[in-house]
Amino acid sequence: MAHGTLYGLIGKLMVQPGQREALSEILLDGIAGMPGCLSYVVANDSSDDDALWVTEVWESQEAHRDSLNLESVQKAIAKGKPLIAGFGERFETQPLGGTGL
Amino acid sequence: MAHGTLYGLIGKLMVQPGQREALSEILLDGIAGMPGCLSYVVANDSSDDDALWVTEVWESQEAHRDSLNLESVQKAIAKGKPLIAGFGERFETQPLGGTGL
Repeated sequence: MAHGTLYGLIGKLMVQPGQREALSEILLDGIAGMPGCLSYVVANDSSDDDALWVTEVWESQEAHRDSLNLESVQKAIAKGKPLIAGFGERFETQPLGGTGL
Repeated sequence: MAHGTLYGLIGKLMVQPGQREALSEILLDGIAGMPGCLSYVVANDSSDDDALWVTEVWESQEAHRDSLNLESVQKAIAKGKPLIAGFGERFETQPLGGTGL
């Protein structure tokens, strides 16, 4: 598979106690059908009950930036914000390829 | 999309200076067609020229374990090992769903 310069994010979200399932559902609802999004996986941290990981691959950095203005994403951000306790590690990447893109 | 208990890994590889492209090609060649692999993305770290990120989603932890015995994967490990300078962060996850799975 050949790609231009893809844009990737790996980030950890700290969740208010007991709210991880609720937050993950909000995220999964909000991200459906985002243009230019090749991969967006929401995952529980296996060793921290109050942490989620989000790994993203976008066709370009612009596609990611534009997604933040989508109504569905704005709604998810507004709904999810009170459940977020903070932000953990965040890594920016340039995806090269692989399975599932 | 409904899934059983998925298994995820997020890991950072430190690469011998100047060998990142070579290592990423070995990885991308070696991982093609692994049974039970839903997503496997190889990405350059945007702020460290000698680091790669690998993010993986598997149907199960067993599928991941079994992949390590595949001839194609064994070959990639043998070929890539001399180019690896070390291992950075490693996070184990339980993916819940998302785009690209």
